This record gives sequence, structure tokens and C-alpha cells, in this order.
Amino acid sequence: MQNFIFDNPTRIIFGKGTIARIGNEVRRFGTKALLVYGQGSIKKHGIYDQVISSLKEAGLHILEFPGVKSNPVLSYALKGIELARNEGVDVVLAVGGGSVMDTAKTIAVGVKADPGDEIWEFFTFRKKIRSALPVLTVVTVSASASEMNPTAVITKEEGAQKYTISSPFIQPRASVLDPTVLYSLTADCSAFGAVDIVAHLLEGYFNNREPASPLQDRLVEGIMKTVMESTEVILKDPQNYNARANIMWSATLAFNGLTTAGMGLIGYPAHMMEHSLSALYDIAHGAGLSVILPGWMGYAVKNNPAKFARLGRKIFGITEADDMNAAVQGIYCLKHWFASIGSPTSLKEAGIPDSDIDRIAENSAALAKLWGLKDYTREVIVEVLRLCKA
Amino acid sequence: MQNFIFDNPTRIIFGKGTIARIGNEVRRFGTKALLVYGQGSIKKHGIYDQVISSLKEAGLHILEFPGVKSNPVLSYALKGIELARNEGVDVVLAVGGGSVMDTAKTIAVGVKADPGDEIWEFFTFRKKIRSALPVLTVVTVSASASEMNPTAVITKEEGAQKYTISSPFIQPRASVLDPTVLYSLTADCSAFGAVDIVAHLLEGYFNNREPASPLQDRLVEGIMKTVMESTEVILKDPQNYNARANIMWSATLAFNGLTTAGMGLIGYPAHMMEHSLSALYDIAHGAGLSVILPGWMGYAVKNNPAKFARLGRKIFGITEADDMNAAVQGIYCLKHWFASIGSPTSLKEAGIPDSDIDRIAENSAALAKLWGLKDYTREVIVEVLRLCKA
Repeated sequence: MQNFIFDNPTRIIFGKGTIARIGNEVRRFGTKALLVYGQGSIKKHGIYDQVISSLKEAGLHILEFPGVKSNPVLSYALKGIELARNEGVDVVLAVGGGSVMDTAKTIAVGVKADPGDEIWEFFTFRKKIRSALPVLTVVTVSASASEMNPTAVITKEEGAQKYTISSPFIQPRASVLDPTVLYSLTADCSAFGAVDIVAHLLEGYFNNREPASPLQDRLVEGIMKTVMESTEVILKDPQNYNARANIMWSATLAFNGLTTAGMGLIGYPAHMMEHSLSALYDIAHGAGLSVILPGWMGYAVKNNPAKFARLGRKIFGITEADDMNAAVQGIYCLKHWFASIGSPTSLKEAGIPDSDIDRIAENSAALAKLWGLKDYTREVIVEVLRLCKA
Repeated sequence: MQNFIFDNPTRIIFGKGTIARIGNEVRRFGTKALLVYGQGSIKKHGIYDQVISSLKEAGLHILEFPGVKSNPVLSYALKGIELARNEGVDVVLAVGGGSVMDTAKTIAVGVKADPGDEIWEFFTFRKKIRSALPVLTVVTVSASASEMNPTAVITKEEGAQKYTISSPFIQPRASVLDPTVLYSLTADCSAFGAVDIVAHLLEGYFNNREPASPLQDRLVEGIMKTVMESTEVILKDPQNYNARANIMWSATLAFNGLTTAGMGLIGYPAHMMEHSLSALYDIAHGAGLSVILPGWMGYAVKNNPAKFARLGRKIFGITEADDMNAAVQGIYCLKHWFASIGSPTSLKEAGIPDSDIDRIAENSAALAKLWGLKDYTREVIVEVLRLCKA
């Protein structure tokens, strides 16, 4: 196990009926709140009314910033920053999934940035985040774990760059997780969420070489099994409370630092390549991950067959004694599972032509450089993407 | 899964060589620190020198309060409170195991209490904790998880009452966990720590009725397996870093709110009865738990045989199909495992005469009442204790 710091002060308020508590949480940080949300599904499903009622009861002035789209873009976050600055907002409340939460975090950073700062320079790591407005969240899609981590992802349309920021200043102060809000998600959205959770788990898992930390391996395997079986339940029975609740808390734990503590620096190569797919083709992040992850595993297995074999055995019950065979069978099973929940597992299924592989690789190689993934040259990325073709 | 709040802001600094960082952490909270420690083993093993050097480098004024004994007592904590008050201490640093950390927490509460407050009234829940000095810790025994939870346990000698307080004010602000400090623990102390961790895990586990939260069950099982296999390693090879590190982080996660989130109100009946053993006979908490836990399981199994059977199957590989049989075999295996690591598994082995059962039950029944464990009348406690006789 490697040295680590675990420092996650987000207060999680979890369960049925908890949205009513968001007003008092927001009120701890000021009186004027920017309410960030998406395309309006929260209005259809009654979530908006619950939030507004709680905020008003707590005596908050509310300024609304709706309209965040999935794969959120910088240009829209800049509008939010301008609005929040002009109106003297104290605190930012995101009500939505990863796209909304990450836009809210970007706004929180932007409001506190120096007037001359180019916001994008925080994403290219040319500038360091030194302050942000307090951020709180009400989660409506479980996948990103943005509700309990210090990270945000935004796409700059020009150049199709889907990049990230990470800073303790944007760690949410409190997040409300009410599993019943997940009841109205589409099957696709639930499936893509499950893929994202699994991807978060596995990128850390493959960084851990036995026997360094059996604890982290078991945490990952336990969360992954739970997400898989609960996803199968909710695809048949969308209003199964316990299955939704298990997914919701699993999603948060899968990327809040718990499963990666002690695993050292983690590269996230599958996420890195997926960012290019959603930046260039605007596909759902989870859909992109189910395309990339099996291909990436097929590429990476040779570096650590024992660990990939462990996944096959622990998650899919593979009994094959040879590590490489067990590993390959495990990758096949995972790909098959992604397909079984309705997520695409090839570039072709995602509607991305093979002939674009070079273009995608060029985009990814730039991010690989920024993230310090030295092994992922353009050539290597082309090799991985070819494994994702069909 | 039941509603819950997870709010654990302790910063964990984990790994080899991390004690050097405690000075700067303490310095965030003031300039005059009370250094609380035990009987001097930290001096023998170089931990004291590392701590002092880091505190001095951070420019702190240090006031020492050594001499805390295991099963720490109220009268000694009161001395610490007086000292800290008279000297105008800003912050309390515990360097030790649960006894030292809990004494430090009690001192932190006492210094901020009103002059007329009886400190013991916080432990009997007649008064509510409204403030405390900041507490930080350097862990030298992994068991209690006091380094990342809001709880402290102290014994009032008069009446032999081993009671607890719990308040967010005494949640440590930061804790340093360097697994190499565990190298010098005696085999007994390591074994008793392992028992305590397992007991923390299981009291929550048996509160969870399937299929409410498969996630929590898997987290518990993963942590428990890791602690058991790592304990077996370190009893043969005390300086095995990875095994010590896995135990150290497992101990913290086993009682920091993670494994019990969503499990509702948890009663801790085994801890409740153990408190009487260590209050009356001054035996190690872990030793008392390995006496009580198998007996308590034998008593409680009838209420939830499926869950006890699950433990037997998942942890000990029991293949018996009948739940009650699998459950009973699992309890036997756990008792056998406690014995195998050198922890006593009966009142007799712990040197406690059967003839004292009534006296112990009287002591426990008072705590059961305070903790709201309504099912645990004196008669029930006698029944459980009889199952712990041999």
C-alpha cells in the first residue's frame, strides 16, 4: 500500500425525503444561491419543486441558471460565471447529474478567479485554483461521484477538448442523495451510469498489484458486484428502492477517494480516451466508456494478467486456472455485461467510423500529455482504439 | 437501506514517514498543544522523538500529559482538563491507541465545558456537548478507530461505569497513521486489536437484514477477511508493511461510519456487555470482546439465522445448506479463530469466575438502559453471559 491522504469533508444526506433538507445546508454558506440545473427534467419529476420549497423555507434568495446540457461546455459555464458575478451570489447549488455538478463547480471557481484569469487555464493546469464559492449538490443521476469529489469535467468546444479540474475548493460542502429521484431515469441513462461507476472502480483496481492491498481489491469487487446486480434489478423494476439506494451510494463510494486510497498515482487511460469520444461525437460518457474499457483491457492485460484474471474469477466466477485465459474470459464477460444492459461496446455500435481512429487518437494524445500518461503515445492510442472497433 | 448522514471530515495522513507532518497539522489550530500519551512505550520506539521534532519544527509550545493507562479512567482525564485549562491550551494531540485518544477527547470536551459542568454528565447523556478543543491524533494501536470517529470511552472508577460520549466536536481534525509504528506491538495487543475491529464490523452487519444493503455486507466481509488474513501474517512476521498497512486502514474504516451507513440505529450489545468486563476486571477491551462476541452470537442467532449463516459461508467457506447449521458452524469458526490468534474465548480463560455473572449483568443492565437496548434486561444478559462461560 502506498502513502496517501484521505480528506473528504462532504456531508452526505442520504435517503427518501431528504431534499427537504437542502435549504438549511445551503443557508450555512450565504443568503443568495445560484441554482444550476439541466434541461428541465427536474421540473417534470417534482424535484425542482421540492428544492425550491426547501430553499425558500430557509429564507434564501434564488437565482436560476438552467439549461446545462450533458457533456457540458465551457461557453455555457462562462455565462453562469458572468451571471453569478453580476448578481453577487454567495453559494452555488447544483441539482442534476455530473454535467450539472461540474458546471456548477466551474462557475464556483470562475466567480472567485481574478478578473484577468482565463478560466480554461485551470483546466490545462497552467493556473492553480486558489478559491471558489461553496458548492452543494442534489444528485439526480448517479455515476460521476462529483457529489463527493473535488473534480469537474468540461468541454471546450473549440478544439474539442474535454478536460478536468481538481481542487479541494470545489469539493461539495454537502450533497443530498435521495434514491427515489432515480426512479424516473431512462434505462439508457441508468445503464450508462452503471458503466461509469464500473470504469471508476477498475481504473484504480488495475493499478494495484497484489499483494499490496487486498483491502482495496475487496472494496472494489464488493462495490462492483453490488452495482451490477442492482442495475439488473432496476432495469426490470425501476422503482426498486433498495437497488436504487445501493447503486446511488455505490456510485459515490466508487470515486470519492475510498477505493483508490493507497493505490498511488492513477492514470485513468480509459477515461482519457473516452473524453475524446464524447468531445468529438457528443456521446454519453458511459456509452463511450463501454466502448473503450473492454478494448483498453484487451490492450493492458499483458502487463498484469494475474490482476485481470482476478477480476474474471471474483466478478464473473471464471474457474479457468491459467491467468491469461481467465483474464481474457473476464474481459469478454464484462463486455457482454455492458451489452446486456444496453450500452454500446464498439465504435461501430456507437456510430463512430473506424476511419476516424487517427483523429480520435490525436485528440486523446494531447490529453495523455497533459495528464502525464507517458505510455499513451498516439501510436498506442491507435492500437487501443483498433481493439474497440467491433 | 435506511436514511443516513455521512459526515466524516477527519483528514487522514497515511503511510511510512508521515509522523513528520503532524506539527503542521496541529499548527492549523493554535500554538499551544497538549500532548497526551500513555505509559511511555512511544519513547522506547522512537515515536515520541518524531512527534516532538515535528511539533517543534512547526513552532508549537508543547505541554505534556503522559501516563494514560489502558481502560482509561475519568479521574485521570479530569487532571488533564485541569492542566489544559490552567495552561490555556489551544489544541489537544493524542499519540497512542484508543485509551489515549479517548482521554484526549474527554480533555478537549472538559476544557470547553462550563465551569459548573460535571464532566461525567456528558457520558450519562444528561448534558449535551456543545464545544471542544480541536483534537488530532497519531495512532499507535489500530483497533478503536477513534482516530476517525466522534466517540470516546472512559471508565468512572466509582461504580465501575465504562461509558461513552459522541459528538462532532471531538471528531479528530487530522490523524496520522504510520503503519511502521505497529511493528513494535506485542502479539497480544495486535490480536486484541483484530478482535475489536471484527466486533465493530459485526455489530453493524447483524443489524442489516437482506436484501436491504448487499453493499454494506460486502464492505464488512471484505474488511473482515483482510483483517483476519493480515493478522495471521503479522503474528508470524510483525514487520510486514503491507499487512500492517491493511490492518491499520481496515481498523479505521471498520468504525468510521462507512460500514454502518444505512443500517439504522445500531445497538452494540456485545460492546455493551464487554464494557462491564473491562470496567470490573480491567481486562483488555479486545480480550473481553472475544469472550463476549461468540456467546452473544450464540444467543442472537435465532433472530436472524440467514445472516449468521451468510457470515459462516462468506468468511469461513462453510458449505452447509441449512441456515441454522451454517450459522452455528460459523460462530464456532470465529471463536476458534479468536483462540488461534491468542485471544481468550471464555470467561474462564479471561480469569473471570462464573459466580460473578450476576454482578456483571447488573453492571451491564445499567448501560443497556442508558443506551436504549430495551431487549437486554438483566435476565437476558445473564443468559448471554452463561453462553460465554466456557
